[in-house]
Amino acid sequence: MTDLRPKLPAHALTTIHSFLRGHALATGLDGVVVGLSGGIDSALTARLARDALGPSHVLGVLLPDGGYPRTLIEETEQYGRSLGIETRTMSIQPIVEAFQATLPSVNDRVALGNTKARIRMTLVYAIAREARRLVAGAGNKSELLLGYFTKFGDGGVDLLPIGDLYKTEVRALGKELGLPEPVLARPPTAGLWPGQTDEGELGEAYVDIDRVLRGAEELRPAEEIAAITGLPKDRVRSILSRIEANRHKRRLPPVAKVGLRTVGIDWRE
Amino acid sequence: MTDLRPKLPAHALTTIHSFLRGHALATGLDGVVVGLSGGIDSALTARLARDALGPSHVLGVLLPDGGYPRTLIEETEQYGRSLGIETRTMSIQPIVEAFQATLPSVNDRVALGNTKARIRMTLVYAIAREARRLVAGAGNKSELLLGYFTKFGDGGVDLLPIGDLYKTEVRALGKELGLPEPVLARPPTAGLWPGQTDEGELGEAYVDIDRVLRGAEELRPAEEIAAITGLPKDRVRSILSRIEANRHKRRLPPVAKVGLRTVGIDWRE
Repeated sequence: MTDLRPKLPAHALTTIHSFLRGHALATGLDGVVVGLSGGIDSALTARLARDALGPSHVLGVLLPDGGYPRTLIEETEQYGRSLGIETRTMSIQPIVEAFQATLPSVNDRVALGNTKARIRMTLVYAIAREARRLVAGAGNKSELLLGYFTKFGDGGVDLLPIGDLYKTEVRALGKELGLPEPVLARPPTAGLWPGQTDEGELGEAYVDIDRVLRGAEELRPAEEIAAITGLPKDRVRSILSRIEANRHKRRLPPVAKVGLRTVGIDWRE
Repeated sequence: MTDLRPKLPAHALTTIHSFLRGHALATGLDGVVVGLSGGIDSALTARLARDALGPSHVLGVLLPDGGYPRTLIEETEQYGRSLGIETRTMSIQPIVEAFQATLPSVNDRVALGNTKARIRMTLVYAIAREARRLVAGAGNKSELLLGYFTKFGDGGVDLLPIGDLYKTEVRALGKELGLPEPVLARPPTAGLWPGQTDEGELGEAYVDIDRVLRGAEELRPAEEIAAITGLPKDRVRSILSRIEANRHKRRLPPVAKVGLRTVGIDWRE
């Protein structure tokens, strides 16, 4: 029947293309900005946007910190050239240092990672304003469900073209579209500290995570997901509890309801 | 019958207090951080949080830029002391300058204003992490509906205690609670450039804006709002069109729907 492995639907490509066209060329806008990290999610997002909108409507932005490998910057700029899109590269290191000088507690490892993600968001929006573009995020469905992103950092975007593709589906689509081998092979990382990998930090391989998430999508209880996948129940429960614990990252800020119709609750948009 | 002036409901205070208690003292958290600008919205938010949670659970943060009047900093710190809450003050100017050096287009007036708002969000979150607090925003209903805030800047918060009070209701409640006269009297401003005032930039007084917004809340058409308020139809329509134009600021980033259940659309939270 099912082994709960997500399967990329045949319509995925056309759906994402028309989503991008519908949003990014709306009145007065000239396309999208995509932050390019060197990873597969942003590489795929840029590729889909290029295919949907044409290369002149996609601007790739590289925002390395001081520890970012020079070779990866060059490889990523080269990837942008191969797509025919314009890229811009600027180091966030001086801004990171200004934050560190202002607030020493930013040097806590997680706080520093979140701060870098928010600095990138801020720069990407300034560039998007100048270029009259929307900000296309590279978040995928696994990250959105696990809450594996920085609120108002990499989560701070105008649209999410691959936000309904699990990480394993992102890999499948990237392979299908012939993304460069080093991009496909690189271990997923948020890049927030040296040696960080998603799977190391999450404690699970995406191939397992995605089967559990797909089980939740099908509204199956933990026991059933464990039985189908063969994963231990406590590991299934631990992944499911992340979905719930990070729900606040998938919601608008709650408003204290006082009036007749309230923004984010029952205001008629 | 009605003149469409919003009237602060009698239950507003108790509703906001219990909203704050419900959110800010959730498992493992120790209260809220409130960014204090010197304006009435943040002063009221801090006061409500202090009353609901007790002074030790409210941390006030002042984040002036280089052009911020020294006397206003002192007055705002004094206001914090009068509430019995801890305050911290740090200048964002060195960080602003690091952004300006990295990306010259940040110097566009609006881009600079947005960048400052996002720098403040980033610092407030770093402080909130250190202090194990949530970020309480000071956005009011008029601002939320008009989209008169920076996306992922002052809009980047965990909860909105006064997000269902129109600006005129904020004033009424501030007066009722005896907020300091200079706070009540100061013209509303986002403080993003010298001489900026909300009403100057919006081209309307809040007393008129709020009547139009209240008309929209009651689902009345523009003609009817104009007839009731006596405001010219084109001014009513112009305010109503702002609600629609800034709808994206009151929504989660849209996701291209590919799968069975999609985050922000039909994922079962």
